[in-house]
Amino acid sequence: MRRSVAEFLGTFWLVFGGCGSALISAAFPELGIGFVGVAFAFGLTVLTMAYAIGHISGCHLNPAISVGLVVGKRFPAKDLPAYVVAQVLGAIAASGVLYIIVTGNPSFNAASSSFASNGFAEHSPGSYSLLACFVAEFVLTFFFLWVIMGSTDKRGVPAGFAPIAIGLCLTLIHLISIPVTNTSVNPARSTGPAIFAGYWWPLQQLWLFWIAPILGGAVGGAAYLFLFKEPDKSF
Amino acid sequence: MRRSVAEFLGTFWLVFGGCGSALISAAFPELGIGFVGVAFAFGLTVLTMAYAIGHISGCHLNPAISVGLVVGKRFPAKDLPAYVVAQVLGAIAASGVLYIIVTGNPSFNAASSSFASNGFAEHSPGSYSLLACFVAEFVLTFFFLWVIMGSTDKRGVPAGFAPIAIGLCLTLIHLISIPVTNTSVNPARSTGPAIFAGYWWPLQQLWLFWIAPILGGAVGGAAYLFLFKEPDKSF
Amino acid sequence: MRRSVAEFLGTFWLVFGGCGSALISAAFPELGIGFVGVAFAFGLTVLTMAYAIGHISGCHLNPAISVGLVVGKRFPAKDLPAYVVAQVLGAIAASGVLYIIVTGNPSFNAASSSFASNGFAEHSPGSYSLLACFVAEFVLTFFFLWVIMGSTDKRGVPAGFAPIAIGLCLTLIHLISIPVTNTSVNPARSTGPAIFAGYWWPLQQLWLFWIAPILGGAVGGAAYLFLFKEPDKSF
Amino acid sequence: MRRSVAEFLGTFWLVFGGCGSALISAAFPELGIGFVGVAFAFGLTVLTMAYAIGHISGCHLNPAISVGLVVGKRFPAKDLPAYVVAQVLGAIAASGVLYIIVTGNPSFNAASSSFASNGFAEHSPGSYSLLACFVAEFVLTFFFLWVIMGSTDKRGVPAGFAPIAIGLCLTLIHLISIPVTNTSVNPARSTGPAIFAGYWWPLQQLWLFWIAPILGGAVGGAAYLFLFKEPDKSF
Repeated sequence: MRRSVAEFLGTFWLVFGGCGSALISAAFPELGIGFVGVAFAFGLTVLTMAYAIGHISGCHLNPAISVGLVVGKRFPAKDLPAYVVAQVLGAIAASGVLYIIVTGNPSFNAASSSFASNGFAEHSPGSYSLLACFVAEFVLTFFFLWVIMGSTDKRGVPAGFAPIAIGLCLTLIHLISIPVTNTSVNPARSTGPAIFAGYWWPLQQLWLFWIAPILGGAVGGAAYLFLFKEPDKSF
Repeated sequence: MRRSVAEFLGTFWLVFGGCGSALISAAFPELGIGFVGVAFAFGLTVLTMAYAIGHISGCHLNPAISVGLVVGKRFPAKDLPAYVVAQVLGAIAASGVLYIIVTGNPSFNAASSSFASNGFAEHSPGSYSLLACFVAEFVLTFFFLWVIMGSTDKRGVPAGFAPIAIGLCLTLIHLISIPVTNTSVNPARSTGPAIFAGYWWPLQQLWLFWIAPILGGAVGGAAYLFLFKEPDKSF
Repeated sequence: MRRSVAEFLGTFWLVFGGCGSALISAAFPELGIGFVGVAFAFGLTVLTMAYAIGHISGCHLNPAISVGLVVGKRFPAKDLPAYVVAQVLGAIAASGVLYIIVTGNPSFNAASSSFASNGFAEHSPGSYSLLACFVAEFVLTFFFLWVIMGSTDKRGVPAGFAPIAIGLCLTLIHLISIPVTNTSVNPARSTGPAIFAGYWWPLQQLWLFWIAPILGGAVGGAAYLFLFKEPDKSF
Repeated sequence: MRRSVAEFLGTFWLVFGGCGSALISAAFPELGIGFVGVAFAFGLTVLTMAYAIGHISGCHLNPAISVGLVVGKRFPAKDLPAYVVAQVLGAIAASGVLYIIVTGNPSFNAASSSFASNGFAEHSPGSYSLLACFVAEFVLTFFFLWVIMGSTDKRGVPAGFAPIAIGLCLTLIHLISIPVTNTSVNPARSTGPAIFAGYWWPLQQLWLFWIAPILGGAVGGAAYLFLFKEPDKSF
């Protein structure tokens, strides 16, 4: 239970900070933070929360990570449903609180905002095709799991460094791919904003951002396990 | 006493570096650092000072943090007044020294500068409503305390990493919210510049930046304590 | 074998993330990440992979590093060929996957893209001469090896910090030199994109980006060994 | 001797990377790194070198730091001359190599370049007065020493974190003050470029960038020692 609360709050922070910076600060005239700032914001939500709640829940904050760690034999499958539910609820709650803040700006028009949703093809920020978007999300989540499994491998670096590696990996992922899909690699992060968007397409395109990250994460977890054997038994 | 001196100097550094970068460098033509640079400057004041004086005073630099740590049973209530006084004096002194530097720029007009003050409604950088500003400050300080308590929890990561988590958390908070309130989450940081601003509104609106961060910090400290039990008794 | 797989995947990540961010995100209208974002992307590919696979292969991801470490007596010469082949294949594979993604953007014209290749003289981003480009690549790789050998020296800092030093060193190198050569310091990184560029010049100029980084790396490794004696025997 | 070589090479890297990024990358059209990128470049030269040569020479790279550490009883006065000479020579050598690279750009006009020199009053980037420039350099170097002494205090954080604190402190210092003096806090860094500038004023104004940082560093070292007693005897 306390682990579910931690996942709820952690995913709240990820969506509040990442999507919040995109909605509030990215395009502020002259001084806005742009995609660089949004990339750091997403990464720092994970870095900070991993230090805060890593010792409680492992700080997944992401169904694709939880699935990948099950496949990689680092996380018990029986805990998966509770984690995923907590993550999705946290993402929805964060989007709701963001909605209260953002609609407090008189020039914000909720009916014509995608609310930082993920999209492909005509709803990709840079008009990337469905294939390009699938490949990007798959490859990026594959390597995200790789970094997570490697940086928390008992045979690797001492404890304490993994949040830096994992948080800044999410920053890197956003530096690469915001123009492609607005960057998901996280089904929960895609689901929250889709509910509050002023359009239907974020919900209609949501399937891709469940399938591609979860597939990429599962294959990434399996590949790490297969290639480097000796699964970590200590979860 | 030496702890109060540390808090005074640390809060001086926070306001000098954070508000200084905003006043001096943010909007420099062509090459200015924008909100991204200001966000890193605020965060790095805390990161650097936490490494420098963390072992002396704990490096709070912020009345909302000191209150939150009292509520979270990490800091004795009897030390609170001395800390808060030192923090506010440090913030005022830093603003004074900044005033000397900034008025050395012939194109700076002190009478029409808000001096990096925090504001809401018509004085919010992005015109966010009072409600939006209250919610943002409350939520951000709540999670700031959460990260502070989690990253310094004896059950968590090894010593030495907390300054990275806490400093970059303040960077993240600024990436999200400069357009909302110019970002406070710190009553001392709000008080110093308000005194040197060319307008009355920073002092008139100062109440919000004492109430919202302290409430958020107190609830954050209480929530961490309640959810994860076993308070750390070692302060 | 598992070490070669690690080098293949790691170099894939370096080229996919570094060149990908340059191709996809650097020049996005208004919100693009610019050279600062590309510099962080390159550095973070190394930081994240060093935490992920450092314990498996040492995470070189770069023929100039492998050569420099042989000269510096940190890596056995007999393993060099397998590492270099894996690195080059990883870079080519990453460029191929990037090609799939980037051509999914209807406004991308493959025939007129240099595909983030390195170049000198008329193909230097800032039109720097061959001499300037050689000096820059040589000096930067010299110091890159210096940082690698020093930060992994058993007499130095505790284990775990080297990925931060080495990854952010690559960020620094890009902050300095993207306008000069588009920054190589890595023959594998130069080779992958050159194959997919819409022009012949990246292949014609490729020799410089094998010679200069490898020379700089070899001299850097030799200088560290000579000046600070006591080679680390533990590889 | 090997310590002097380390200081020479380290200061070379600081000036090559910091001033190089300013000259080469800061103002590149559209994609340039701006003051944010230069601030990170300066800080990362110190972060990377502190990991590389910290165990050899302590990695001062700066006469104001060496003096401050003598005053703070962390560094023996008898070693000061050799360190300062090595630092100044390293800065001059780096400026010379930068000159070769930068003049390889046909649109660079050496006769009308300040070569990233420091200046005050009419040669301050933002036209700040001499008083403002003195106060900024004094206060910033004061706190720089404070962070250096605190983060390397045996009573503080575990070994290994100081390079992060100190390197990012230099980043923070640049985020605040490039518009004021182009940021020195380091007499060696000011001396190298002044020699290669196309004007006389960098040499004429050089006195300020020896006096202010050294004074600030000495007072900072003394203040830390006085306030927190128990000097570290282990150098």
